[in-house]
Amino acid sequence: MPQGQPSAVPDDGMTTRQRRTLPVLAVHTGPGKGKSTAAFGLALRAWNQGWPIGVFQFVKSAKWRVGEERALRVLGASGEGGPVAWHKMGEGWSWVQRDPGSSEEAAREGWAQVRRDLAAQTYRLYVLDEFTYPLHWGWIDTEEVVRVLHGRPGSQHVVVTGRHAPQALLDAADLVTEMAKVRHPMDAGRKGQPGIEW
Amino acid sequence: MPQGQPSAVPDDGMTTRQRRTLPVLAVHTGPGKGKSTAAFGLALRAWNQGWPIGVFQFVKSAKWRVGEERALRVLGASGEGGPVAWHKMGEGWSWVQRDPGSSEEAAREGWAQVRRDLAAQTYRLYVLDEFTYPLHWGWIDTEEVVRVLHGRPGSQHVVVTGRHAPQALLDAADLVTEMAKVRHPMDAGRKGQPGIEW
Repeated sequence: MPQGQPSAVPDDGMTTRQRRTLPVLAVHTGPGKGKSTAAFGLALRAWNQGWPIGVFQFVKSAKWRVGEERALRVLGASGEGGPVAWHKMGEGWSWVQRDPGSSEEAAREGWAQVRRDLAAQTYRLYVLDEFTYPLHWGWIDTEEVVRVLHGRPGSQHVVVTGRHAPQALLDAADLVTEMAKVRHPMDAGRKGQPGIEW
Repeated sequence: MPQGQPSAVPDDGMTTRQRRTLPVLAVHTGPGKGKSTAAFGLALRAWNQGWPIGVFQFVKSAKWRVGEERALRVLGASGEGGPVAWHKMGEGWSWVQRDPGSSEEAAREGWAQVRRDLAAQTYRLYVLDEFTYPLHWGWIDTEEVVRVLHGRPGSQHVVVTGRHAPQALLDAADLVTEMAKVRHPMDAGRKGQPGIEW
């Protein structure tokens, strides 16, 4: 239920208005469903605010998130809310001309672009979908990511999704939600369904 | 990551195709964020499938979920995916002419309409947002809800969101995700922000 009451008022010298525009780093992690889905739900709010949104999908499959992608693209093109840029590692990042050679290299190129966009304040909301995996696997240096995110200019919000979020990323986050799997149809032998799983 | 492999193959005499179109009852519960957000993210997938979507907001405030509502309405009207009907208790259900008198009565009238729509197979996805509260408070009989959901015809998917989901509802669900709060900006005295909280 909408309450919106902080549990404490900080002694940080900031006004409520200043605190209201603080940039948020959110991490959705855990083994349950809804990590990415909730991030794209958050993108609906950002879109409604007229914010430019950048989605970076750090997954191999270009077919993943087709529903969310189409919806956000239609919304971004509607002219009613913010614009949406959708970047997919799975079909080759648009700014990379040559073949990246490996998923590890491709993931690094994705992060390099996120860095550039953060420095240029290209977007107001960044959805770094499944970004925890290249961190977890050591393909991208978590300390560097935390340092860059910590120092990002302006009021840029970042949502990172995926299992196995490194502790240093969790420590740096303002908002951490863990999605726990209580019950899943696949446990009962069901397969993924269109409209539900993708 | 997209795996889609069930952990067991059931001996239920059904084909994979039959299992793929089984109606899903999902419950997003727990004290963390993302319960409703993930439900609206799911609605993006349903929209992409061309499914009619019915959203029922069981909350008093008509201003709640303004971002999601506007996005889903724009998508529904785009003609590219499925149509979207958005029903709000907070501004009086559109099918109720007189003043419901109390939130309890209003919640019951919402559920009565969901029953009728399920019987008529009006939608393919139902988002019953914050519906756990009238169940938790005893305003609506959980046993009846479970019975109606269990007996719903066709392939109608239902997502229920909110804290304090009654055990009988969890037992009846195919998919239960509990959103745990690990860290929240309001703990640090921050207030809700546009684009993040709504």
